[in-house]
Amino acid sequence: MGSVLVTGSNRGIGLELVRQLAASPQAPQHIFATCREPDGPSGKALRELAAQHPSIKLVQLVSLPSIQGAVQAVESHLKGQGLNLLINNAGVSSHATLQSVDSQEMLAAFTTNVIGALVSLCQEFLPLLEKAAKGLGKEGLSCSRAAIINVSTKVGSIGLCLGVLEAPMYPYRASKAAQNMMTRCMAAELKDKGILCTAIHPGWVKTDMGTEKAPLTVEHSVRGILTVLASLSQDTTDAFLDWKGNSVPW
Amino acid sequence: MGSVLVTGSNRGIGLELVRQLAASPQAPQHIFATCREPDGPSGKALRELAAQHPSIKLVQLVSLPSIQGAVQAVESHLKGQGLNLLINNAGVSSHATLQSVDSQEMLAAFTTNVIGALVSLCQEFLPLLEKAAKGLGKEGLSCSRAAIINVSTKVGSIGLCLGVLEAPMYPYRASKAAQNMMTRCMAAELKDKGILCTAIHPGWVKTDMGTEKAPLTVEHSVRGILTVLASLSQDTTDAFLDWKGNSVPW
Repeated sequence: MGSVLVTGSNRGIGLELVRQLAASPQAPQHIFATCREPDGPSGKALRELAAQHPSIKLVQLVSLPSIQGAVQAVESHLKGQGLNLLINNAGVSSHATLQSVDSQEMLAAFTTNVIGALVSLCQEFLPLLEKAAKGLGKEGLSCSRAAIINVSTKVGSIGLCLGVLEAPMYPYRASKAAQNMMTRCMAAELKDKGILCTAIHPGWVKTDMGTEKAPLTVEHSVRGILTVLASLSQDTTDAFLDWKGNSVPW
Repeated sequence: MGSVLVTGSNRGIGLELVRQLAASPQAPQHIFATCREPDGPSGKALRELAAQHPSIKLVQLVSLPSIQGAVQAVESHLKGQGLNLLINNAGVSSHATLQSVDSQEMLAAFTTNVIGALVSLCQEFLPLLEKAAKGLGKEGLSCSRAAIINVSTKVGSIGLCLGVLEAPMYPYRASKAAQNMMTRCMAAELKDKGILCTAIHPGWVKTDMGTEKAPLTVEHSVRGILTVLASLSQDTTDAFLDWKGNSVPW
């Protein structure tokens, strides 16, 4: 894999993805680690990691105008090459029942998790992914050719619809179901361009979002995710898989 | 069934639901037919229908402040009784590919189809549905006790993800997947209150939205929907059924 971009990479699963990718014996040449404030206090751990690995480049990414700036920054590092792998990991969670939810919460989760972190980002990075897909000797679908990985969640599975009474999370669940639909639409639309598109459930992980109650460490989850990514092909574009590679119902 | 409210009832499936409900031998006592402009040119067919059936009451419903006005209008007709059945039929469609879609289209479809036509509406009408559920001698779940029916679409099925290349419809698909998630969440949350919640795919119907190319007449589709509604129970709250009663994957 020549290059990968990870959004929301200043903490949790995003930070660990960058850490394990950079430490891997087959580390990508370029690891673009994006977050809202790479130079602020919330970017400290990421800056320390980047100081140890010249392959890691910090890129600011907030909302639409900054996506275009991020594309330019990435392009200038790639020097004419494409971007192989875009990992859409950034997102927000939010809790509410039918009775407590308000329109603004519903809109905010949808805007961040579906429009900003996914549709707009994929639109803007699509030319670089298409360039990677056209690379010499590339056939079939794989993360080393060109791929979009959307970090999703089992909580966003309509089929499972887990634990609504304990964790209503209406805005989050609605946004993640919509995100999963976008994964499948993009997989269908981008297949013939040589771009794979898959949704990944990272498990319930001990992060700021997952809380300490979660059973899974972030190291364990990310090790699983990277093993799954390496195994993806035309058979699993369009799939919803957990960190162990098991299928999750839509 | 004592009372039913149908949104988007000035044309297409909504108008036909009101027509067949009013003409039924077991017609509900009150049929609240809502649309944006019951007094405008787009409400003409509905006004003509209401002139023939005193059970039909026209109620204006546009966005959030008008929902509260609509609840008051409905309440004044019900004279202390609850509302048995809320059919969320109103919605908008929209076509766009990954490359052509813009944030505003994504937001507009989500705002109309999920927030306005579903979450806000259910929140505001919930007290009247709860009142109906508590009615004398009512047990189990059914449309004649208390129910929310969300008119959905096979195009919003993530599992099927039909015809993306021919009909990309990203904003519509995302909003309908989110709507389906809300159906399941509400079914789980409202079950113990005696309120059924089910998603219905009306088929591809010859309406303004479905176009003339659709194979199914609106009369045929609505006859099927009403038969399905009469059959719903605690076994089918939480389901996604088509107009023939067949299960549709989420």
